[in-house]
Amino acid sequence: MWRATVLSLFPELFPGPLDASVLGRARAEGAWALNTVRIRDFSDNPYGSVDDTPAGGGAGMVMRADILAKALDSVPREGRPVVYLSPRGTPLTQPRVRALAAGPGLVALCGRFEGVDERLIEARGIEEISIGDFVLAGGEIAAMALIEACVRLLPGVLGSASSLREESFEAGLLEYPQYTRPRVFEGREIPGVLMSGDHAKIAAWRREKAEETTRARRPDLWKRYCENGPIRRGENKDADP
Amino acid sequence: MWRATVLSLFPELFPGPLDASVLGRARAEGAWALNTVRIRDFSDNPYGSVDDTPAGGGAGMVMRADILAKALDSVPREGRPVVYLSPRGTPLTQPRVRALAAGPGLVALCGRFEGVDERLIEARGIEEISIGDFVLAGGEIAAMALIEACVRLLPGVLGSASSLREESFEAGLLEYPQYTRPRVFEGREIPGVLMSGDHAKIAAWRREKAEETTRARRPDLWKRYCENGPIRRGENKDADP
Repeated sequence: MWRATVLSLFPELFPGPLDASVLGRARAEGAWALNTVRIRDFSDNPYGSVDDTPAGGGAGMVMRADILAKALDSVPREGRPVVYLSPRGTPLTQPRVRALAAGPGLVALCGRFEGVDERLIEARGIEEISIGDFVLAGGEIAAMALIEACVRLLPGVLGSASSLREESFEAGLLEYPQYTRPRVFEGREIPGVLMSGDHAKIAAWRREKAEETTRARRPDLWKRYCENGPIRRGENKDADP
Repeated sequence: MWRATVLSLFPELFPGPLDASVLGRARAEGAWALNTVRIRDFSDNPYGSVDDTPAGGGAGMVMRADILAKALDSVPREGRPVVYLSPRGTPLTQPRVRALAAGPGLVALCGRFEGVDERLIEARGIEEISIGDFVLAGGEIAAMALIEACVRLLPGVLGSASSLREESFEAGLLEYPQYTRPRVFEGREIPGVLMSGDHAKIAAWRREKAEETTRARRPDLWKRYCENGPIRRGENKDADP
């Protein structure tokens, strides 16, 4: 079973949004497990504090390496990587999500305040992951995003594997636009080709739209796509548009 | 007052993690407000369904433009942008977060399934924002990340403005590493310069570390930094290391 362990000052926030819909059902059915560690339980003082002022001065507080190490060392690793959610980390990508989902799970460390003492990250070989180029108040929502991204890829969590294969990033492109009934919405019609019933034409149109959208919105992804060709995860490159 | 309105199939997930710590206190004190709209309330059928099969075929379901338009049009805009959280969107950056935090708030549309009918996005001039290059089960956690990133920048929500000024992305760099007591952790010492009391040397060391970390981890940010110089938000470039 895929297991997430979350270390946080606010463990009561979990599962929170991770208990909604398909993820919640999958957890109830035993497809994945979640447990939390309250970092404050490892405080060495009667106030339960886990932080101290930054060495060298500056605003805010830094979470202490010794206390976090005790909290982390209380968690059975079971071969799982330890991830620290931080804007200084490597940007999370769908390939990294796929790799994490294919493994035994993860241990997520959520920082608050000015972050954690750098020596903890070095001493425990922690992987720093950023969910994006913006700053949050803590790592909790970032950990939820990471866990949700992984869990939805576990076998049986979403209904349909083909739905996973055509989504954004799976071929190195953003997804094509989607339409559904009604056929006309405020004078706007569903593109005719989608109503044609011609599957080859529909597939070609969707590929064209995916390329057009990626080129227009994400020149960085488009450049990589042009250099590398579509990412296929071992599939036959020509079998599937 | 800064206002977030969230449209979702799971409005009960809010405020959830947005009610923790400083953000929760700030909301209780009236620094910001949050309300939700249950999209299902705008369904036109006794089953409460809001989606239909994709035009042109394919797995999953697409959220209907007509129902989402009714839900969205029920929300007083009050000059706020409507944001649709989607991996097809423009990547969220700290400058966009700052701009949103400086405005009256936002209206966030959370998709589920295969996403929303493209015509809704066109007809209502919706801004598509992606929190990162990975795929979630729905827009809710992404909306939480966006709202948390904005709210922490509102005046008075965090204690100290100087703490905001030195964090990742504020100068176009990742943040320098942080250290705190104990002075020695598992044989690792706090870097000597941070214990020197020499504020100019500390500032120079931190800038060097911020540049070194950015160069090593984020060649994309480093390239932009070298081309544009530090981002200063109107401050005197030389006043503040």
